[in-house]
Amino acid sequence: MNYLIAFLIPIVLLIAFGSVLAYRMPQKRDIYAKEGFVVVGLSWIFLSVFGAMPFLLSGAIPHFCDALFETVSGFTTTGASILTDIESLPRSVLFWRSFTHWIGGMGVLVFTMAVLPKSNEHSVRLMHVMRAEVPGPVVGKLVSRVKSTARILYGIYIALTLLETVRLLAGGMPLFDALCNTFGTAGTGGFCIWNDSIAHYHSAYADMVIGVFMLLFSLNFNLYFLLLLRQFRPVFKNSELRWFLSIVAVATAAVMIDVRHLYPGFFTNFRYSFFQVISVTSTTGFATADFNQWPILSKTVLVLLMFMGACAGSTGGGLKVGRIMLLVKTFVREVRLMLHPRSVHVIRTDGKRVDEETVRGTASYFITYMLLFAGSFLLLAILDDYDMVTNATAVSACMNNIGPGLEIVGPTGNYSLFCDASKLILTLDMLAGRLELFPILMIFAPTTWKKH
Amino acid sequence: MNYLIAFLIPIVLLIAFGSVLAYRMPQKRDIYAKEGFVVVGLSWIFLSVFGAMPFLLSGAIPHFCDALFETVSGFTTTGASILTDIESLPRSVLFWRSFTHWIGGMGVLVFTMAVLPKSNEHSVRLMHVMRAEVPGPVVGKLVSRVKSTARILYGIYIALTLLETVRLLAGGMPLFDALCNTFGTAGTGGFCIWNDSIAHYHSAYADMVIGVFMLLFSLNFNLYFLLLLRQFRPVFKNSELRWFLSIVAVATAAVMIDVRHLYPGFFTNFRYSFFQVISVTSTTGFATADFNQWPILSKTVLVLLMFMGACAGSTGGGLKVGRIMLLVKTFVREVRLMLHPRSVHVIRTDGKRVDEETVRGTASYFITYMLLFAGSFLLLAILDDYDMVTNATAVSACMNNIGPGLEIVGPTGNYSLFCDASKLILTLDMLAGRLELFPILMIFAPTTWKKH
Repeated sequence: MNYLIAFLIPIVLLIAFGSVLAYRMPQKRDIYAKEGFVVVGLSWIFLSVFGAMPFLLSGAIPHFCDALFETVSGFTTTGASILTDIESLPRSVLFWRSFTHWIGGMGVLVFTMAVLPKSNEHSVRLMHVMRAEVPGPVVGKLVSRVKSTARILYGIYIALTLLETVRLLAGGMPLFDALCNTFGTAGTGGFCIWNDSIAHYHSAYADMVIGVFMLLFSLNFNLYFLLLLRQFRPVFKNSELRWFLSIVAVATAAVMIDVRHLYPGFFTNFRYSFFQVISVTSTTGFATADFNQWPILSKTVLVLLMFMGACAGSTGGGLKVGRIMLLVKTFVREVRLMLHPRSVHVIRTDGKRVDEETVRGTASYFITYMLLFAGSFLLLAILDDYDMVTNATAVSACMNNIGPGLEIVGPTGNYSLFCDASKLILTLDMLAGRLELFPILMIFAPTTWKKH
Repeated sequence: MNYLIAFLIPIVLLIAFGSVLAYRMPQKRDIYAKEGFVVVGLSWIFLSVFGAMPFLLSGAIPHFCDALFETVSGFTTTGASILTDIESLPRSVLFWRSFTHWIGGMGVLVFTMAVLPKSNEHSVRLMHVMRAEVPGPVVGKLVSRVKSTARILYGIYIALTLLETVRLLAGGMPLFDALCNTFGTAGTGGFCIWNDSIAHYHSAYADMVIGVFMLLFSLNFNLYFLLLLRQFRPVFKNSELRWFLSIVAVATAAVMIDVRHLYPGFFTNFRYSFFQVISVTSTTGFATADFNQWPILSKTVLVLLMFMGACAGSTGGGLKVGRIMLLVKTFVREVRLMLHPRSVHVIRTDGKRVDEETVRGTASYFITYMLLFAGSFLLLAILDDYDMVTNATAVSACMNNIGPGLEIVGPTGNYSLFCDASKLILTLDMLAGRLELFPILMIFAPTTWKKH
């Protein structure tokens, strides 16, 4: 009964609030880039506060900072938790916790676009919202209308979600577990309903199904759309896909060699190595092994994969494989430019010329990202007293929306030990990472609030 | 006697080799950007091999990889050492070890330019060599002729060196010690003739003199030239200088607050905090305290300062303050660009517009730098078995030409535990860091060796 009220109160409040907003129509109806970013940034903060209410009101997470951290971690599909005993929570709260991943994965506002009937005619302004919310360096409209694009994306998302749930049920997993774990996989989130995450099931079948779906959800959703249109060639020739699969394969092989003494037998070794590699690369953060106890090479590989993350246009986080590709190509071009300063050097992807604006924007994104990382790393050292590996991987795991890091925030640890101020920094890092930095950074920029 | 031969053999070999090269005049006498880079890269490797001979032949450092590491560490003014007992070495070898810092600080080839009589008429091609060897994003010719510029730089360098030696002698330091420590300071190198570095002297006077000179040698030498010309305004208004001094002041204050329980009394606290901060920021690497034992905030501040480094146009390493300034300004511009996509946003330094090519080049430099860092960090994890803080700070301390890092490579540790392959990676990192990445990276680029 208590729990019912915990969910009813935010529902009633949101309906009331929404009705007031819907009644008061704005005079200026145009949404430009600036407004698009700010709308997305503020909406996510606003929704997270309401999303935290069930945790707070039910008493499951009594402190506001903790509840906000957990909710933002859910919506941003990070999966970092401040809970020390997940299993003690009631099922309703656990379901909501996992469901936030599913909602956040594709984007709360993109979802609104897909279902709202009115949004039909205002394609251009919605594009600005979608560009700010969908992960990746370039958002291509799949079809001419934004609303249809949003619907197609959600269609693919729902189909894959159903497929995974059915697969898990087929392996004998209870429906509640199957749904919650699928939400965690689909959003590449990583919240699980058990303290020991997916390791709880002791099932090679569950490990492999979830592992494969983590991989599927970290691919660019545009590729699935192309497959639906039976355009196989551009999918197979997609260089981001090739880079991603190659990196996952090489990383899995390296980890397998490194941990072969821990997991005897090829299949057992593959099962644990592949799961942790794809869990970190897809930025999900499920665990079937405590990689904090693994040897240094494996840990180093996982830390580097944390920063890379998944493909652009997926539900995953991190810098994105597409950006890493562009950064490596920028480096190669710089060497060429130094050698032959007068020649023209063009960067190409998939045979197409990448325009200089994208190259410049990617470099600036990387600079912004590293400055935010360094700043957060310094702030944690000021505010708390943990070791540098904990601080560095905590920031990385939050900014890249992964969840577990190393040491104190390792797969068997959690974020409960940080002070409230540190939790707030990490909460902002999660939001910045999920929304590709700028919507959150702009909220703090004085020029954003100046009238022109 | 044995030691005399150890120095005579490389001298004779170099004279013989030099004579042969001088005799065989090249047909094409033009040096373009490509040749400038490759000449510098190969010369430094070549000179390091010869510079390692006294260590090898005297038996002071019996293994080639170790001797090469120590010599490159000297010439690149890193100061990272594989020696476990420095004090057991003969004075001749210790002198050579410290002297390599002094030679490498200003640049071996710039020195050659300053003294060679023939180089007078070939200003343009020498500029390419100088641009590749002098640290910083932009090399401004102080006066119209390269040779004169080189001479002025060396004049300032020698004057500051003499000044520090005299100051140290005045404090009662023996001449041999004063010279060796001055060489270490002038090149912002950090080799000391004692196992416990500058802490050996237990002298507040020596600490302060060396501290102040570390600061002086990490400023842009152009500023001293301006002072000589009595142009005080541009010096006081120089924004890199202002950023650098502000960052050093804030960092020192933060460390002082953090370590106040370790060093009671304001002056004692300032003495130790300032020395380690300026030692790391100037990328010298002298130590009067084991900062590996300091609390986490101080360590975090020092690690971040490692990456920043000194001012452009100084003998210090790191990314350089000027580059950090440009990166921060690039980030601020990116936020502005997102907010107002159609406006023109220009980056300014010292009231002057920074051209887009420099902005682009700085971003590419940062990308290259981070990729090299990540690659070296991964290779150390593959080749050796030490913790991540050791590996990360070892790469950082070598790439940024500092010397000591944290944990195993902390101020009381050394690099002897790494395997030969790891030492080679770190040796290349030191060279890449000292020569601003590209001359060393180009040696490995296949296109460099293609004929056109």
